Amino acid sequence: MMDTTAGGRKTAFIGLGVMGYPMAGHLANAGHGVAVYNRTRARAEKWAGEYGGRIAETPAAAAKGAELVFACVGADDDLREILHGEDGALAGMSGGAIFIDHTTDSAVVAREADAAARERDLGFLDAPVSGGQAGAENGALTVMVGGTAESFAAAEPVMQCYARNVTHMGAAGNGQLTKMVNQLCIAGVVQGLAEGINFAQRAGLDGERVLDVISKGAAQSWQMENRGATMLKGEFEFGFAADWMRKDLGLCFEEAKKNGALLPMAMLVDQFYAHVQQRGGGRWDTSSLIQLLQNI
Amino acid sequence: MMDTTAGGRKTAFIGLGVMGYPMAGHLANAGHGVAVYNRTRARAEKWAGEYGGRIAETPAAAAKGAELVFACVGADDDLREILHGEDGALAGMSGGAIFIDHTTDSAVVAREADAAARERDLGFLDAPVSGGQAGAENGALTVMVGGTAESFAAAEPVMQCYARNVTHMGAAGNGQLTKMVNQLCIAGVVQGLAEGINFAQRAGLDGERVLDVISKGAAQSWQMENRGATMLKGEFEFGFAADWMRKDLGLCFEEAKKNGALLPMAMLVDQFYAHVQQRGGGRWDTSSLIQLLQNI
Repeated sequence: MMDTTAGGRKTAFIGLGVMGYPMAGHLANAGHGVAVYNRTRARAEKWAGEYGGRIAETPAAAAKGAELVFACVGADDDLREILHGEDGALAGMSGGAIFIDHTTDSAVVAREADAAARERDLGFLDAPVSGGQAGAENGALTVMVGGTAESFAAAEPVMQCYARNVTHMGAAGNGQLTKMVNQLCIAGVVQGLAEGINFAQRAGLDGERVLDVISKGAAQSWQMENRGATMLKGEFEFGFAADWMRKDLGLCFEEAKKNGALLPMAMLVDQFYAHVQQRGGGRWDTSSLIQLLQNI
Repeated sequence: MMDTTAGGRKTAFIGLGVMGYPMAGHLANAGHGVAVYNRTRARAEKWAGEYGGRIAETPAAAAKGAELVFACVGADDDLREILHGEDGALAGMSGGAIFIDHTTDSAVVAREADAAARERDLGFLDAPVSGGQAGAENGALTVMVGGTAESFAAAEPVMQCYARNVTHMGAAGNGQLTKMVNQLCIAGVVQGLAEGINFAQRAGLDGERVLDVISKGAAQSWQMENRGATMLKGEFEFGFAADWMRKDLGLCFEEAKKNGALLPMAMLVDQFYAHVQQRGGGRWDTSSLIQLLQNI
């Protein structure tokens, strides 16, 4: 990846999970000052041991003095917790600083956060990512950003240090809505692939050969190319967890109640993910949908 | 495309529809002798006017003297009609000639045809294609072939004149089964894309920008890249017809009754295609699934 960032910005990063940890690491490697906060302090200490940087005791303390405050946490309520209150990031921010939320959460919480930031003359961007843990580690994420053009212009060059694509999708909330479209498309692709591969196996075909042939035509997909072989082998302990996919589909369903979109396939697939969870596969990759078809 | 065929073989082509017409044309252009039969004679005359070659009055007459007899007709019963009886292709074939069925039909009819061919010491290959009308016209089809290795070896170099990939999938019927897997995967991809694009439109997003961003990651698919823009514009009068997709899904369901594969998503999508047909869209491209979500 070409690093187009100029280092030396004062930043904070809140939430050092599987995504945040390497993302914050790229910020530090690019020469930015990074103050970190993580709920489990031991992980922040590990991060600081690896990359340097300051460990803060609260989100507010991490955010204090930072021009850009990044977060990558679990869901809506986690974001609210690190954002608001006297220990929250907004309380520590000043001087037109911008809060960038990399969490995949709702468009509602994005607009809420945007309003709260505006009240304090701060900026806000909802900036969910795709590309998974590997994308975060390799600095090759896709970032879908909602918020003002001004905040986008200020934060975009810095996000480039862990991204391959950073695109402005319009007003606050639009980053999250774009990520929802992404997840809906994936749900269909993966279920189709699961039904196809299971059919191939039951029909006695050579699965690898089938995928090799059909991936050259109109059935081709990233999922086929990157998950087909592992589905054939029954390997699911990696990748994007069924738990996370179910959380994301839930965001789509909440939003669809408002915008009126029908999601019949996504709702069916969501039920299959519920089954995966019940089988103890909540941490399995989304491609584990095929297990339901195989274990009847 | 590199033409690796040696011309000068004696061939016949039965069924000059949107696929067969250009495929037979590639045979003629590659220097093979082609006798053609088509139910509607006027179309055979048009073909002969364009490519030369002999027009036959029956499948048997077309097949007489040919080393390789190709067919691309509608469905199981059409294949049975051109294959059997005193006017059928098998009656005209001799000397170890090989019948190659490019129709997408059932694995059952493929095995039936294979048995009938063996009784007469003839060869049979089931060889459904993907790549659509454009693939046929550009000589860029993918061909999935079932049958003996011997027949495959004899016919493969000639099929190269209209194909980009010709792959042997095993015994008679396996070509059809592979095509079924292809269609199952497509059904999931297209429905996911339809739900995603409709959601994006209802959420007020810039659809082109959304597809541009998400096509760089895990949601990417051939369908997204080749049908996303037309779905956004509501253009469906081209491509692979809903009628044909429904026929193909029906083949999958018949086969699944025997091999035990569950196809919950494919069955749901099949019902949506029934709706497309009822709306008068039987000839619309498979991507017209999105219309159901838009017109409620």
